[in-house]
Amino acid sequence: MSNLGFIDLRSDTVTLPTEEMRRAMAEAEVGDDVYGEDPTIQRLERLAAEIMGKEAALFVPSGTMGNQVSVMTHTQRGDEVIMEAESHVYYYEVGAMAVLSGVQARPVPGRRGVMDPDDVRRAIRERGNIHFPRTSLVVLENTHNRGGGKVLPLDNVKAISDIAHSNGLSVHMDGARIFNAQVASGIPASEYAKYADSVMFCLSKGLCAPVGSMVVGRKDFIDRARKNRKMLGGGMRQAGILAAAGIIALTKMVDRLQEDHDNAKLLAVKLQELGYGVNPEEVETNMVVVDVTPTGKDVHTVEKELKTRGVLANANSPKTLRLVTHYGVTSDDAIKAVEVFADIIRQ
Amino acid sequence: MSNLGFIDLRSDTVTLPTEEMRRAMAEAEVGDDVYGEDPTIQRLERLAAEIMGKEAALFVPSGTMGNQVSVMTHTQRGDEVIMEAESHVYYYEVGAMAVLSGVQARPVPGRRGVMDPDDVRRAIRERGNIHFPRTSLVVLENTHNRGGGKVLPLDNVKAISDIAHSNGLSVHMDGARIFNAQVASGIPASEYAKYADSVMFCLSKGLCAPVGSMVVGRKDFIDRARKNRKMLGGGMRQAGILAAAGIIALTKMVDRLQEDHDNAKLLAVKLQELGYGVNPEEVETNMVVVDVTPTGKDVHTVEKELKTRGVLANANSPKTLRLVTHYGVTSDDAIKAVEVFADIIRQ
Amino acid sequence: MSNLGFIDLRSDTVTLPTEEMRRAMAEAEVGDDVYGEDPTIQRLERLAAEIMGKEAALFVPSGTMGNQVSVMTHTQRGDEVIMEAESHVYYYEVGAMAVLSGVQARPVPGRRGVMDPDDVRRAIRERGNIHFPRTSLVVLENTHNRGGGKVLPLDNVKAISDIAHSNGLSVHMDGARIFNAQVASGIPASEYAKYADSVMFCLSKGLCAPVGSMVVGRKDFIDRARKNRKMLGGGMRQAGILAAAGIIALTKMVDRLQEDHDNAKLLAVKLQELGYGVNPEEVETNMVVVDVTPTGKDVHTVEKELKTRGVLANANSPKTLRLVTHYGVTSDDAIKAVEVFADIIRQ
Amino acid sequence: MSNLGFIDLRSDTVTLPTEEMRRAMAEAEVGDDVYGEDPTIQRLERLAAEIMGKEAALFVPSGTMGNQVSVMTHTQRGDEVIMEAESHVYYYEVGAMAVLSGVQARPVPGRRGVMDPDDVRRAIRERGNIHFPRTSLVVLENTHNRGGGKVLPLDNVKAISDIAHSNGLSVHMDGARIFNAQVASGIPASEYAKYADSVMFCLSKGLCAPVGSMVVGRKDFIDRARKNRKMLGGGMRQAGILAAAGIIALTKMVDRLQEDHDNAKLLAVKLQELGYGVNPEEVETNMVVVDVTPTGKDVHTVEKELKTRGVLANANSPKTLRLVTHYGVTSDDAIKAVEVFADIIRQ
Repeated sequence: MSNLGFIDLRSDTVTLPTEEMRRAMAEAEVGDDVYGEDPTIQRLERLAAEIMGKEAALFVPSGTMGNQVSVMTHTQRGDEVIMEAESHVYYYEVGAMAVLSGVQARPVPGRRGVMDPDDVRRAIRERGNIHFPRTSLVVLENTHNRGGGKVLPLDNVKAISDIAHSNGLSVHMDGARIFNAQVASGIPASEYAKYADSVMFCLSKGLCAPVGSMVVGRKDFIDRARKNRKMLGGGMRQAGILAAAGIIALTKMVDRLQEDHDNAKLLAVKLQELGYGVNPEEVETNMVVVDVTPTGKDVHTVEKELKTRGVLANANSPKTLRLVTHYGVTSDDAIKAVEVFADIIRQ
Repeated sequence: MSNLGFIDLRSDTVTLPTEEMRRAMAEAEVGDDVYGEDPTIQRLERLAAEIMGKEAALFVPSGTMGNQVSVMTHTQRGDEVIMEAESHVYYYEVGAMAVLSGVQARPVPGRRGVMDPDDVRRAIRERGNIHFPRTSLVVLENTHNRGGGKVLPLDNVKAISDIAHSNGLSVHMDGARIFNAQVASGIPASEYAKYADSVMFCLSKGLCAPVGSMVVGRKDFIDRARKNRKMLGGGMRQAGILAAAGIIALTKMVDRLQEDHDNAKLLAVKLQELGYGVNPEEVETNMVVVDVTPTGKDVHTVEKELKTRGVLANANSPKTLRLVTHYGVTSDDAIKAVEVFADIIRQ
Repeated sequence: MSNLGFIDLRSDTVTLPTEEMRRAMAEAEVGDDVYGEDPTIQRLERLAAEIMGKEAALFVPSGTMGNQVSVMTHTQRGDEVIMEAESHVYYYEVGAMAVLSGVQARPVPGRRGVMDPDDVRRAIRERGNIHFPRTSLVVLENTHNRGGGKVLPLDNVKAISDIAHSNGLSVHMDGARIFNAQVASGIPASEYAKYADSVMFCLSKGLCAPVGSMVVGRKDFIDRARKNRKMLGGGMRQAGILAAAGIIALTKMVDRLQEDHDNAKLLAVKLQELGYGVNPEEVETNMVVVDVTPTGKDVHTVEKELKTRGVLANANSPKTLRLVTHYGVTSDDAIKAVEVFADIIRQ
Repeated sequence: MSNLGFIDLRSDTVTLPTEEMRRAMAEAEVGDDVYGEDPTIQRLERLAAEIMGKEAALFVPSGTMGNQVSVMTHTQRGDEVIMEAESHVYYYEVGAMAVLSGVQARPVPGRRGVMDPDDVRRAIRERGNIHFPRTSLVVLENTHNRGGGKVLPLDNVKAISDIAHSNGLSVHMDGARIFNAQVASGIPASEYAKYADSVMFCLSKGLCAPVGSMVVGRKDFIDRARKNRKMLGGGMRQAGILAAAGIIALTKMVDRLQEDHDNAKLLAVKLQELGYGVNPEEVETNMVVVDVTPTGKDVHTVEKELKTRGVLANANSPKTLRLVTHYGVTSDDAIKAVEVFADIIRQ
């Protein structure tokens, strides 16, 4: 299924809801969720908490809100927050942390999104120095978007979590695509979640719900996050409509992410064969970062030529395109896309 | 239609989507709205702008977000904002203005939500005094929730708008229930909107959409508001699902608000006859504020006795209940509710 | 002693340091106070804490910083703070609370700066309502500047403090002129301070130090306030220069405030006799608010005519001038000023 | 002149005012600077602006306030600010930028405090991407504290300034020690200042004034900065006392910084001879960063042994001490300190 005839490799955010989701939304039993009376939301929140092995869950309208509500709830005004230097929460969320939470970002450069635990340790501010903010939170992103869909190694998560907790810091996991990590690694999302005090994950993206993400954590954390959600304007009334699709996302759409990973691998292998700069070994989930330098063309030229030929993709750096596979991209689509890439490099 | 067998007079936020809305949501054509590609959102935004006579519109997940995004977009850090002392944006939005926008509230006490234009003038800070914040915005609420659903007189809106504009201030209208104002006064919402630089109004509440509100204004304002919405986490992907219901809300549900007003008036007249403290003259839209002192009972006792007998209502002050009529309350329901009130005062 | 030949009744902030202060500053033993090594600062902080009956004290460069550091230290982002509607912290501090602390102001109108304890109680937000910010602080101002130098009645302070503490709120006292309250009422400043968790008071103003204010409170509060002072840029190095004057202010300048009060009373009595709108009964300390309507002239005209004749005074409302007596205004000056006022009303 | 008998190499912030400064403070003509009536402040502000070749200047109580006021004045809530990753404004100012200005830090790692202009260019956010904050400011630090007192090469300053200005960004220079840069490079401070929209520099530190820093820039910038200073509580009344010392700092203390540089060089050469890890080539101003690994001892052990023998110095990383020379450290003191270091490495 493609977007207006295009093979859309820009992002898995473009996925459309399934027919089953549409039916579920049409028939959803709903109530006023600000009063805590929407039964479908309640069902989704219980399900999300259970899957992640946490006490409680909160539905939010976007991954950005899920991350920002978590940051607000973990921190106090004036704290410092450690995250990988190209992580979504720092790179793509409009500088929200400073505005909404009044916290300073302490970005730590990683390798494909993976921070060295020693770098995290060094980034924690010494207590008692009056010149320093208090470090109170580490944010991990799994899988890591700008790291090319990299799955955080469980040992890395454990090591950073240990350092954080032994220094009195909390850990939030931006798990927008945590089920991609689960499917790729065979490690259950709940296992990753053990090492985080809160996890945000999306029902949209590869799981295809039209709108919505979840935050999970301890009950008291979620209670406070609920109030912060209200402050940000994320309290919705008959949100059960959206939750109905979310329940299907969580119960029926996770395993199929393997197809997206297979298609991404296929793209990587074939594009490498064509001479593009891509290492299939680094393609762990549903993203492929492709260096277009071998075409002799500028990345934006390649972007345009792809579009002319029916393939959509976004540059994510001055030399690379990011290709994302998802429910709207079949293996046939992937093969067709490869043909277009072949045309472009041969010209 | 009632909530679990209750006659639910707590709020019009409890309204359920209509069958037509559910069908529309199930069939909605959607796309990724963060990329500006959701056709149903686009249709709704054009419709909203047109109805309000403004250049552009923005869909937001809640009225609170609509108000807060507007405040952020109109102001700079450190400004002061004038609003009625019991207005929603000040009273019920978790103190968001200070956190999100860094602006100081300057509440002006009104009469049933209507500020005296002279009080507004006096509240504007003199320029050039280094001790004073810059006043940059006036917020009006129409109809006014804690004012008992009061319609702002058009002359009052004009007068305050003139004062604001001639002092270089912007005007935002919290029109969560602006169509109640339109139906009650016969003055089109767009006429009120003329005097405001931005208007927020809800598709939920009396109009019955499950989720969503709109902000309308000039194109450049909406462009900046769109970015602030992203920062708050209100950017949603296939939001056309919700927009499909919103379009029906705007095109088919406005005129029926008259029924809610009729039912509110009926309640007021009958409760007054029973001896309750209520002035039917003051019931202009779908809210009735009832002083329960004549029952000789505490307001929370009356709340509980109503609930036991199948009627839900919320205290909104130590002596008064607020009754709200809506799509889920028929005239029969209103009559039944009156009987329950009769029982309680007679005991 | 007058300012460039003027009798300067604009504010007691214009006072000049005494010769003894100048000598003390020239000879002060100093060190690096950010390292905690300035002996004169340490002496001043111990003295201030002792006089106020608190565990610890902090030197700050201004009353505004003292108030804002206290608000930051008592609150969390998103809280609500109650204060009198014309209090300095709300009216004259550039909206700082919202920017620096992210807290919403809840101004309560008082009578000449004195809030009714019942109004304070009603302004405290109910816990557990997701729409409400958390109320965490009450600020009292003693004496109250815009209240015309009004001394807060001790019973009023006690009553509000009881309400605050029994609701889990802290109390901060803006005691910029608390020694004026002490001298006028005979109640020691430390007695007022008993009912507040923190008190800010100024060494400048009537006490004549050139720069500086103190915050006093519990040791852990002052430790956190010290860090917030650093964040605001109020950490100064060899601040003992200023502290040397502050020590003299506290030890030698308090009792002479009686002269300022006598001069203010004199002004009030005489101006009333001349026909100006002023009630000497309301002049409790060093401020006189004078309604100039009986002159038949605009307040700004009167301001200018006074200046032409060598008297400086500021309008503090469209009809009133505020006259402030201080160390730079002798009783002779007061009598001369009365003569000028006489000329103006007779014309 | 030493601090309590110690040779104090911890920081140049410990310098004591000269006798001439003390006399000037004792005799300073002062007025109320919030009213703009302090003649000594006015004189200092004119002098500072003139020296730096800017239209206007503002006195502030600390370098931190000078930097933060500048950041507030250059930015809007939600912007992103580029600075070197170990710069004072990011590293040592308690995370203030996020709290006070609501801006996100974008630290760029440099070499001894010098950023590569290409890295600055890459760190500027693309306009028009809704996920990105607006980059509005670059902060340069000259000399660079954690860079070991490194003087920014003028070409580097020009290159970054060009990139910033051609992208619509402002440039602020944290010139806390800009006169050290001037003395070391022979380039006038005003030449560096040409490439910055605002410059902060300190009157304390090597220039020995007890308290105070200046911000210089265009008149409209300084006007707005003055208001932001008021908001932060940096508006002081008879601040001319401090300004009197500041005038001497600027007019008489700049050239003597050469002695501090000579002493620093002496320390570096001698410590290298003794076997300590230090490169005298890198000692450009008054700071020496010494790797103590060759002693076979932990940095904190060396710190303590130095103190026992009468030398104060601070660790600035797990392996290095920072030694700072200043007015309180004579060449004899430097030689004595070398002897103590010799004892420690020989043991």
